[in-house]
Amino acid sequence: MNESLELAQQALDAANEAKFIANNMWILVATVLVFIMHLGFAALEAGFVQKKNVVNILFKNIMIVCIGLLTYYLIGFNLMYPGTNEGGFFAFSGFGLTLPEGGLTSGYADYTYWTDFIFQAMFAATCCTIVSGAVAERVKLVPFLIFCSLFVTISYPITGFWKWGSGWLDARGFYDFAGSTIVHSVGGWGALAAIILLGPRKGKFSAKGIHPIPGHSMPLATLGVFLLWFGWFGFNGGSVLSADPGLVSKVFVTTSLAAAAGAIGAFILSLIMFKTYDLSMVLNGVLGGLVGITASADGVSVPAAIMIGFIAGVLIPVSVTAFDKMKLDDPVGATSVHLVCGIWGTLAVAIFGDYGDGVGTLMSQLIGIAAIGAFTFTLAFLVFFILKKTVGIRVDIEEETIGLDIREHQLSAYN
Amino acid sequence: MNESLELAQQALDAANEAKFIANNMWILVATVLVFIMHLGFAALEAGFVQKKNVVNILFKNIMIVCIGLLTYYLIGFNLMYPGTNEGGFFAFSGFGLTLPEGGLTSGYADYTYWTDFIFQAMFAATCCTIVSGAVAERVKLVPFLIFCSLFVTISYPITGFWKWGSGWLDARGFYDFAGSTIVHSVGGWGALAAIILLGPRKGKFSAKGIHPIPGHSMPLATLGVFLLWFGWFGFNGGSVLSADPGLVSKVFVTTSLAAAAGAIGAFILSLIMFKTYDLSMVLNGVLGGLVGITASADGVSVPAAIMIGFIAGVLIPVSVTAFDKMKLDDPVGATSVHLVCGIWGTLAVAIFGDYGDGVGTLMSQLIGIAAIGAFTFTLAFLVFFILKKTVGIRVDIEEETIGLDIREHQLSAYN
Amino acid sequence: MNESLELAQQALDAANEAKFIANNMWILVATVLVFIMHLGFAALEAGFVQKKNVVNILFKNIMIVCIGLLTYYLIGFNLMYPGTNEGGFFAFSGFGLTLPEGGLTSGYADYTYWTDFIFQAMFAATCCTIVSGAVAERVKLVPFLIFCSLFVTISYPITGFWKWGSGWLDARGFYDFAGSTIVHSVGGWGALAAIILLGPRKGKFSAKGIHPIPGHSMPLATLGVFLLWFGWFGFNGGSVLSADPGLVSKVFVTTSLAAAAGAIGAFILSLIMFKTYDLSMVLNGVLGGLVGITASADGVSVPAAIMIGFIAGVLIPVSVTAFDKMKLDDPVGATSVHLVCGIWGTLAVAIFGDYGDGVGTLMSQLIGIAAIGAFTFTLAFLVFFILKKTVGIRVDIEEETIGLDIREHQLSAYN
Repeated sequence: MNESLELAQQALDAANEAKFIANNMWILVATVLVFIMHLGFAALEAGFVQKKNVVNILFKNIMIVCIGLLTYYLIGFNLMYPGTNEGGFFAFSGFGLTLPEGGLTSGYADYTYWTDFIFQAMFAATCCTIVSGAVAERVKLVPFLIFCSLFVTISYPITGFWKWGSGWLDARGFYDFAGSTIVHSVGGWGALAAIILLGPRKGKFSAKGIHPIPGHSMPLATLGVFLLWFGWFGFNGGSVLSADPGLVSKVFVTTSLAAAAGAIGAFILSLIMFKTYDLSMVLNGVLGGLVGITASADGVSVPAAIMIGFIAGVLIPVSVTAFDKMKLDDPVGATSVHLVCGIWGTLAVAIFGDYGDGVGTLMSQLIGIAAIGAFTFTLAFLVFFILKKTVGIRVDIEEETIGLDIREHQLSAYN
Repeated sequence: MNESLELAQQALDAANEAKFIANNMWILVATVLVFIMHLGFAALEAGFVQKKNVVNILFKNIMIVCIGLLTYYLIGFNLMYPGTNEGGFFAFSGFGLTLPEGGLTSGYADYTYWTDFIFQAMFAATCCTIVSGAVAERVKLVPFLIFCSLFVTISYPITGFWKWGSGWLDARGFYDFAGSTIVHSVGGWGALAAIILLGPRKGKFSAKGIHPIPGHSMPLATLGVFLLWFGWFGFNGGSVLSADPGLVSKVFVTTSLAAAAGAIGAFILSLIMFKTYDLSMVLNGVLGGLVGITASADGVSVPAAIMIGFIAGVLIPVSVTAFDKMKLDDPVGATSVHLVCGIWGTLAVAIFGDYGDGVGTLMSQLIGIAAIGAFTFTLAFLVFFILKKTVGIRVDIEEETIGLDIREHQLSAYN
Repeated sequence: MNESLELAQQALDAANEAKFIANNMWILVATVLVFIMHLGFAALEAGFVQKKNVVNILFKNIMIVCIGLLTYYLIGFNLMYPGTNEGGFFAFSGFGLTLPEGGLTSGYADYTYWTDFIFQAMFAATCCTIVSGAVAERVKLVPFLIFCSLFVTISYPITGFWKWGSGWLDARGFYDFAGSTIVHSVGGWGALAAIILLGPRKGKFSAKGIHPIPGHSMPLATLGVFLLWFGWFGFNGGSVLSADPGLVSKVFVTTSLAAAAGAIGAFILSLIMFKTYDLSMVLNGVLGGLVGITASADGVSVPAAIMIGFIAGVLIPVSVTAFDKMKLDDPVGATSVHLVCGIWGTLAVAIFGDYGDGVGTLMSQLIGIAAIGAFTFTLAFLVFFILKKTVGIRVDIEEETIGLDIREHQLSAYN
């Protein structure tokens, strides 16, 4: 009996190890997928700007990823997941990464400490990339990189802690599965603050009305959207935080169908509104659908996911038009996609989701949206305002006319 | 003894759960890889068309994926895998997705119901994407989307059911591992029907001969081919329907070497035929090799895989030339790649494969190719013919000359 | 008791099978990621060359992958991993793949024989792709493909055997985790030999100084770098040779942070040296960081990884400038990235690593770098020299001026 008990225990340990290997692997695969979203953003934004500002946007986007990873390593991770002050507003457990006592897997049921960090770090960097598109074609490079560093080091982790780090919003029943609010609308609020302070691109708005400035490469923009969708399988699928077969596969289905429905919604409404088959609306419709389903991809029915995506898609032409009317110039539609659809997705949790007692109620969702929005917008506005009053945030008119590539980088995107 | 028996049972359950997690994960990873094939097709087709029709092809391709996923959810999946009428011609188990009795994993040994659906849905959408390339630069957008919807909702699932849904072709011993016929030649037959009815692009054929219309961006086309190969690891590797280490790794080897041999075959013959190092032939040679090995990637030896790929590659310049001689204008070579190499790959099962008694014989393969070809071509021809006689399928000559981008989308691909 | 012992044994077998499935899957996923590095190289190199030579570089890169896979199948794999002559200089176990006695998993703890082959084959092909960038815009196609074939069939596997195949360098304590030397500097030495023999592009160097020839597409180059980083998760992560949760996730962290630090290092020094925000330096800084960490990604601390990456990034502007001063013309900076940072990374093992008694000492690393460098450079020089004296390696001046695309491929990249 001793022998068989021992063998059984050995078998159970081996089985648990196998589960751990598989679960950990899935989060690592998801990390790789989220990483490539940075290329998706870079391509999308580069495609949607003018030829003369392409090097600049590529430069910004690659620098943001690198800065984001390093600062999240230095400060952000321990600010967002300090492991203390449950239900609180703020905590910080020290600079850099230090293995938890007990080692690499201590306190982690399904993956290692390193896996946790690198998956979260990839998320963090996306936040600034969202801002980068909105401020394109007129922002000064270094002030923007300073803004990003502060945003990803301080702002994003603090509000992230409120929910995902077990802070006060988590205690209040706020629900946001993979970050419609915590990632996307946070990026959107940052973008909104920035474009208010920055002002529109020269020539976009005149007494005669709105003058669209078409992007320089639709293949690049389309490539970006496909890559973002591709990466979103990791963004949402990885947010299950294990390879749980039922949940991850469910998330794949809701995410995909919401994205598809987003395209259809944007297609139909933009056809009605603009009488044309508008590629950029459909592309943003896909992204809107993805942002919309992100808060509830694990907990809504498939028809609900389609509805959420469709409404998000419909919101795209509406909000793009609305921002234009407010003379808020956003070259890539980042505020429409990430802020508007991010808010919509967070509300959709309350409408379509079913997360149990007091979780994801309309009230808890509204509190979460408002609190994170107010904090993020205020902080971003303040930082950008100080930068504006000190080093300046906008290139001069001559540089804007010539293009940022030649002046800041002494290089054309195409030769 | 009771204790150790219980523990052993617990260990066995945990081990089986670990296997389930791993197998399910592989099909999900494969799903993500097949998804990115849509970007591969979009890039390839966009690269091979003229600058003035790029927005149009991008628009079509992103819409097709979205429509394909939604209609496959609504109807296609339950038409292709109804779970009834074994050995039959047709069955349908109802609209939308309803969890099988017994739950998410009922009847699934290695993955969940959601995983099954989303993996199959990604396959379905590829079929229409194949057609999209062949009809490029002259087809009307909305009629084409209607055609696609019907194709992916009805035609593809019905013939798919015949084999993969355990219908009559399966009973007859027809073998098609990952879809040389069921996916690729089905797409190819649709393309053939469409280009016959549509006619060639203006200026392609004249009394003086054939006038090649070069694609506008070779980097984009090359990117497309690399991404398609990348995705094919999921297309063929996922078709094992588990993460079986021996089979999946074997499929990786046969698939890769067939693709490589396809390039060599196309390189050599196009050098002989055209006296030049022809990039588009080599690119299509890779794809031809991939399509060719798709029917038998799990069941042939490595040298056989190389042979299959090489012959597929050789078939590319031959069939591109033949289609041109027949004045069938296919801007991207989709019929050569998917129809010709799809048929070749399906026949190769009988020549090189070893699937046991009565499975994959020359007769069963010929029956499968003929039956699926006849059904698909007829249905596609009929649908497209009706569309031609009613709403029209071709843009007017002025629009074709100016380009579809400006007229249908009021947007240029490059600015 | 018999019953529970049997059940326990059954459970243990199932658990071990689950582990095998998971480990094997990770190496296959890594294979897919390494595969897409070929697109990364193709895009990077195409972006960095002039418009008139783009088809040529795309053609070369797709052919290299295909030739590389096939020749590694025929000869290379059994030359690099012959399974005999431990501690020796050379061994060969026969042409083609023959299943090891005992079957697919014989001698493999964590993956199958096919998995082993295909993962290694993807590595092999990268070596030539590195050379391809350096010789761009002036090399003759067929001699270059002959060179590549020999390089990937003979040179790379022999030096690879010295370490990874358990040859003499392994016995001497040389350490190179994923190939800073064995893959990257080997490619770099080949590139150096080739550009010495080939000479600079017309117009690059004159009496008046150095005339930079800007690449034709920065978006393409940037896309390439992101895809290379993406693929590097498989390159380094797969080199763990199992899905070991701690090691693979550690490798993800060190690899990512080294890449990020490489960008920062190149950013700062190029700003100081050139007074501009130099996109191509930052892009190569990322790659330098990745090459640098490749030798020790599994065995250094996170701060050390950041240091290694940062120094690699700093080395980029220094060595690009140095090669230019030596009138060695390398259009994409392959020698700086792969040779210089490859050597640095291999030395960094001795400085920051901790691999136990006599492994990775400064002496063992220097011996490895010198031996592999001398062998590779000599062989590459010899082969290229013979090609130069027989068929010629350089296109004529007229072709170089017009561009290789029109003359060798009768096709422009853009139309």
